[in-house]
Amino acid sequence: MHARFDELRTRLAEIHDLAKAAEILRWDEQVMMPPRGAAARAEQLATLNRVTHDRFTSPEIGRLLDDLAPFEEQHDFDSFEASLIRVTRRDWEKERKVPSDLRASMSRTATLGYATWVEARRTDDFSRFLPALREALELKRQYVACFDGDYDEPYDALLDDYEPGMKTAEVRETFEYLKEHQAPLVKEVVSHAGTPDQPTREFPVERQKEFELDVVRRFGFDPDSWRLDPTVHPFERNGSLQDIRITTRYFPTNLDGLFATMHEFGHGLYEHQVDPQLERTPLASGVSLAMHESQSRMWENLVGRSLPFWRFAFPRLAQLFPDAVAGEDAESWYREVNAVEPSLIRVEADEATYNLHIILRFELEQELLAGSFPLEQLQEEWDRRMWEYLGIEVPDAARGVLQDMHWSIGAVGYFSTYALGNLISAQIWAKVTDDLPDLDDRFEQGEFGALAAWLRENVHRHGRKFTPLETLERATGATRIDPEPYVRYLRRKLGDIYGLPVVGSR
Amino acid sequence: MHARFDELRTRLAEIHDLAKAAEILRWDEQVMMPPRGAAARAEQLATLNRVTHDRFTSPEIGRLLDDLAPFEEQHDFDSFEASLIRVTRRDWEKERKVPSDLRASMSRTATLGYATWVEARRTDDFSRFLPALREALELKRQYVACFDGDYDEPYDALLDDYEPGMKTAEVRETFEYLKEHQAPLVKEVVSHAGTPDQPTREFPVERQKEFELDVVRRFGFDPDSWRLDPTVHPFERNGSLQDIRITTRYFPTNLDGLFATMHEFGHGLYEHQVDPQLERTPLASGVSLAMHESQSRMWENLVGRSLPFWRFAFPRLAQLFPDAVAGEDAESWYREVNAVEPSLIRVEADEATYNLHIILRFELEQELLAGSFPLEQLQEEWDRRMWEYLGIEVPDAARGVLQDMHWSIGAVGYFSTYALGNLISAQIWAKVTDDLPDLDDRFEQGEFGALAAWLRENVHRHGRKFTPLETLERATGATRIDPEPYVRYLRRKLGDIYGLPVVGSR
Repeated sequence: MHARFDELRTRLAEIHDLAKAAEILRWDEQVMMPPRGAAARAEQLATLNRVTHDRFTSPEIGRLLDDLAPFEEQHDFDSFEASLIRVTRRDWEKERKVPSDLRASMSRTATLGYATWVEARRTDDFSRFLPALREALELKRQYVACFDGDYDEPYDALLDDYEPGMKTAEVRETFEYLKEHQAPLVKEVVSHAGTPDQPTREFPVERQKEFELDVVRRFGFDPDSWRLDPTVHPFERNGSLQDIRITTRYFPTNLDGLFATMHEFGHGLYEHQVDPQLERTPLASGVSLAMHESQSRMWENLVGRSLPFWRFAFPRLAQLFPDAVAGEDAESWYREVNAVEPSLIRVEADEATYNLHIILRFELEQELLAGSFPLEQLQEEWDRRMWEYLGIEVPDAARGVLQDMHWSIGAVGYFSTYALGNLISAQIWAKVTDDLPDLDDRFEQGEFGALAAWLRENVHRHGRKFTPLETLERATGATRIDPEPYVRYLRRKLGDIYGLPVVGSR
Repeated sequence: MHARFDELRTRLAEIHDLAKAAEILRWDEQVMMPPRGAAARAEQLATLNRVTHDRFTSPEIGRLLDDLAPFEEQHDFDSFEASLIRVTRRDWEKERKVPSDLRASMSRTATLGYATWVEARRTDDFSRFLPALREALELKRQYVACFDGDYDEPYDALLDDYEPGMKTAEVRETFEYLKEHQAPLVKEVVSHAGTPDQPTREFPVERQKEFELDVVRRFGFDPDSWRLDPTVHPFERNGSLQDIRITTRYFPTNLDGLFATMHEFGHGLYEHQVDPQLERTPLASGVSLAMHESQSRMWENLVGRSLPFWRFAFPRLAQLFPDAVAGEDAESWYREVNAVEPSLIRVEADEATYNLHIILRFELEQELLAGSFPLEQLQEEWDRRMWEYLGIEVPDAARGVLQDMHWSIGAVGYFSTYALGNLISAQIWAKVTDDLPDLDDRFEQGEFGALAAWLRENVHRHGRKFTPLETLERATGATRIDPEPYVRYLRRKLGDIYGLPVVGSR
């Protein structure tokens, strides 16, 4: 039986090697590759994906999993052995249910859909995007049909791709809470404070790089195992637990790049701190998009936009950018980086408004999948909800319904994980600050190691051994994603900054 | 039949994709990867190599090649179809003759042998390296035995790995000519000129980068398809014909890095200018190490160390490094970059002495394989020949028999291709300058496009369609590697620089 388990491990290790090779090629494509290398690279990635998929969905893997059922039962649920078999079986069964032809169609449609979306957005013409969207949705319906009977409702099948085990009903309930409690908070802030004036400042890029490298090194970025490079769209990818690559971007008139770097650092740290025993197995990564986003948002917002952090970092900031921050201090700077303003673009939204952008997409996606309204009306539906949830008028499709590329590549079911990640970050934070009551003092000293160690022990090391909810429960004791801590955190922070009356805290 | 051919192409394209993925991972490992990524990267490369090898040596490929024999006969020898089948059959048959176990042993021994060599060289202790060398040679003999009857003598089997179709007897004859004609030339120069004084100069690295980028851009380096990065040991690798990556290094007190860059540019241009029709097939690369080296040495030496090149480039050099080249002009600088001095280290050897280092290794390798003397005597044999061929005494093993890593990884048969490349470069050069008589004038104007175009048309575009000698014949009309043009070139150049009497020219 041990020999069968070793056989499974060997096969999975090879599959993992091929998947990680593809991941480095994708990183290279976005960061290093000369532009004319794109055509051959697309072929190389397609081949690697096909070889990896074929090896994973082979009947041999299925036979090994069958043979190993008694072996799994002999081992603790938490053991490496039982977890590897359990998670691999889940992945294998889901992968096997989707015919290769459908996968190929989805992949082709994604490539074409993306190109169509780029063109539609450039010309600000929603109608150009309609045929591609129609086809992507039709394929999504076929995809959902592959899992007939496995899920409570169609959207569950899509959500499960990004957030294994998550139910649409649960997200819906969570988001209703946010509509009731977070949306009014934003209106309250805006009516209280108006929209903030953002002065024009100069942040020379070379100094930004110096500043942010200093920050992430203190967080735990070690050049022996990490890289940081500039790109158009910041992201994290890795070649292994010891080869973490994050990217960022720089704007000469603001520090958005710093927050992007801290965000990607959070993703990278999650991957880097997975238990080395899980290396070269399918367990060697973060468990879900929401759990991942909880880590990136935590380092970006709960750490990077906190007053203790800026009490530590502001003097260095003032030293590097004396003109830009003249007349400011840590407290005023803290208020500035937490300014709230409803805006059109999701990726530029602040902590208080971000989730509202997500709720809008989550609702529309379900209606699109169900065909609740003619596709031609999508733009109107979008604009109507932007007014309802955020109180702003959408001037054009490019800054409205066409702003995100996700639907063009068939990534339906993805968006909600961003908001769920925000909520989880606050749930974990509540537990972290209970366990480490002196965290504020540590941050003011520029010391972040205790937080990183807590996260390794309570979240990161598990990798994909458990479901997202099992992982959350192990970290916090909670058995569901609870929106209350996040709203409480926001209310307290914004109350502080904007001098709002304290209501609704418990 | 066309369907069978398409089937072969599809399989070979996938194999090519996997091989190129591995090539980019190797580039990344040496240029970009954080050091602690090494262990996982080794596994990824081993897996990729195994998958690629298994796919290529599969019986299906053999069946396709058998089925396609009549199809091959229906096509011209020069056609894409016939060439692809012919070359694939040759590769497949050679690969199949070597048992997987032996390949695995060679690979393991290479890794261990390299580590042993590093240690032996560090401690300057040849005896430490002996057991590893003994094992590597024993495996080489087993490797040779796999091809029983295919070759005239054992060393042929090794040479053929790097220089397909080349015979030891032919190389021996060529090198005898060099011993007779090149070795005396070196002695003549040294007795005439003594050893040159190299003054200490400062070449700030940032300015070197600027200068060399300017040079290789004029040669044909286009950032849309190329990259240039710093590394410890300069090399060229590529992800595709449109994704060429060269590396170089910089020394603050000399311009050796510039010549390394021109050298690697020559390798890169060969790959870049292969006929795009051959992309994603095993024909899509340079045909052999010697032919490759002829291209790198041509750009480094016949172009980069020529007087017309420096007539063009010297003013720019003087502008960037006014102190370092104070009092020099194009002519004196040309003499300086062509200074001859017998030295201990192959990789630092000049044009005139380089081949002598190679001849020594070529002779020793055959004797090692044959067991002509006890292995313990190798160091003495080395030192004795250094005195005989180059007239210098070897002070220690580190700067003698232990200087190269090749034998430690079992790369026996490799060295001679370096010298053969030098010879081929002069053969091709003689034809180029016949066809393009105004090349000197073009170089003085900083115009190198005509040379690059000639090389594409007459050498590069063929890729691996023909054998190295067939390729050479198509380019020059010659049916063998002829040492005479190289010796003539050297004699003329050194005669010019050192004011030697003109003898032996025809």
